[in-house]
Amino acid sequence: MRALVFDGKLHLRNDYPDPVPTPGESIVKVSLAGVCGTDLEITRGYMEYRGVPGHEFVGRVVHSEVASLVGKRVAGEINASCGICNWCIDGLGRHCPTRTVLGILGRDGAFAEYLRLPNANLFPLPDSITDEAAVFIEPFAAAHEIFEQTHLKRTDRIAVLGDGRLGALVALALHWKNFIAVVAGHHPGKLKRLAALGLQTVTADELAPGYDVVIDCTGHSAGFSSAIALVRPRGRVILKSTAAAAAAMNLAPVVINEITVIGSRCGRFGPAIDALADGRFDPQPLIDGTYALDDGVAAFAAAADKSKFKIVIRP
Amino acid sequence: MRALVFDGKLHLRNDYPDPVPTPGESIVKVSLAGVCGTDLEITRGYMEYRGVPGHEFVGRVVHSEVASLVGKRVAGEINASCGICNWCIDGLGRHCPTRTVLGILGRDGAFAEYLRLPNANLFPLPDSITDEAAVFIEPFAAAHEIFEQTHLKRTDRIAVLGDGRLGALVALALHWKNFIAVVAGHHPGKLKRLAALGLQTVTADELAPGYDVVIDCTGHSAGFSSAIALVRPRGRVILKSTAAAAAAMNLAPVVINEITVIGSRCGRFGPAIDALADGRFDPQPLIDGTYALDDGVAAFAAAADKSKFKIVIRP
Repeated sequence: MRALVFDGKLHLRNDYPDPVPTPGESIVKVSLAGVCGTDLEITRGYMEYRGVPGHEFVGRVVHSEVASLVGKRVAGEINASCGICNWCIDGLGRHCPTRTVLGILGRDGAFAEYLRLPNANLFPLPDSITDEAAVFIEPFAAAHEIFEQTHLKRTDRIAVLGDGRLGALVALALHWKNFIAVVAGHHPGKLKRLAALGLQTVTADELAPGYDVVIDCTGHSAGFSSAIALVRPRGRVILKSTAAAAAAMNLAPVVINEITVIGSRCGRFGPAIDALADGRFDPQPLIDGTYALDDGVAAFAAAADKSKFKIVIRP
Repeated sequence: MRALVFDGKLHLRNDYPDPVPTPGESIVKVSLAGVCGTDLEITRGYMEYRGVPGHEFVGRVVHSEVASLVGKRVAGEINASCGICNWCIDGLGRHCPTRTVLGILGRDGAFAEYLRLPNANLFPLPDSITDEAAVFIEPFAAAHEIFEQTHLKRTDRIAVLGDGRLGALVALALHWKNFIAVVAGHHPGKLKRLAALGLQTVTADELAPGYDVVIDCTGHSAGFSSAIALVRPRGRVILKSTAAAAAAMNLAPVVINEITVIGSRCGRFGPAIDALADGRFDPQPLIDGTYALDDGVAAFAAAADKSKFKIVIRP
């Protein structure tokens, strides 16, 4: 099959082996896949991943032992877990120690014609969620993870740092759930578009300290220091960004101001699908470009353009 | 008066001005003062502090507008706060934005014959707490701060990183409160002494990952990375150390494993005094040397000796 492969360098292969399902796995023909900041980080060395990247997708099941799945349009939980360890039993297969992760850890991803995932990872989608909205389910679930990890009050003053893909989705998720959040960034064009979607926006250097909660979606290590400087004493910083690079930082302010820092990664698909199913929440205005798989390298380049939100690839 | 002064260099002065109380402040003649890791950090640039260091002390009130305080043996809350802001009203004067901090921020400290503190900061001590125990009230309160910030279960697996002064007190506080904790360090002599006090000890490189809670008391930035590596996914890392130096670190594991990091600093004196008052909890075996104020520079050198626990200065 055709696939975008990272083996130290990102390139298209026309002769990549088709995925072979193990027992309990289905084969999905990918319809649409989103390029995420993590994909860009992978090309910079994150997780030392080698293989097909891509983990935000919608597609159709073309092969499965589960008859009811065959032909279904699905999104897919990206963490393939053992199902029997205590993490999995606790509903936290996303932390299963033997997990593989689609396009990130030990499992080829979605920038290809086909992928394989465990049957249990596949979520059939209602017709009300278009492909262009469904491709946001995975990052939207990651945004919703915040609500499962910490209790936000409707009166909390919340700042979202970063006007990129993730910052936009986190801020929109907060807005759609009736929290009051300001999203801060450096890109006037994107901030203007987010304001048009109903968000309160501000350029990053205009933020004043004192937020109850600061959510770092900047995608670079400097975001952490900014968040620490902006949160009030005893406040919370939520880290959504992963970055491959270590950076010099001083943790003394975390101790002095007794800040709580909460790392936050993938979320459950169910709540994200529910939130998108009735059509009130529409992330599609964030799509800034659709590329053919053959133009995958160009899609990555476009996704690295800081003036853009989401770039999607149609295999 | 005589005082140990840091003005870029630590030295004894015989002609330092006596403290002049502002309204609402008392004057305390210092009986005994402990040298803390923060004091050593100050001589390395922490907080850019200039003046008399020292914030762990016991002494006797020699001047006060409050008649009932005069002559009393006291310990003293080190954060001098405004008393009227919302932080102060919430009982969190330790975070008052206009606070000064004894021997750390804008207020001369305890390595001197006399110090001044607000009357409200002074805690008269019961006779059952000796001077040698009372000098531990401040760091013991800092250890107890953990219990006010996060709920520990008696079944949590807890690792304390660092066999220094703070690590020892935190581990002892946990032990005395019937939590199960292991203290990890690099100094066989100190670990042996902590084992003799009833603690479970281990050399740091023998710890295996998987702890529910890891408390970093190492006093250097590398302790954070160790803590992150040792805590289980979704576990908690409590940061008790402050260090002047920034260090290169990668926060990706915090995000990937959804770790919660809790900065923890000073604690309330009341619970620490109560815990020490009945004599069951005795930190005095941790004292490794008593120096005259005139030998304060030598006391700092002894406190920097990693084979020692607590060094105290008797002005």
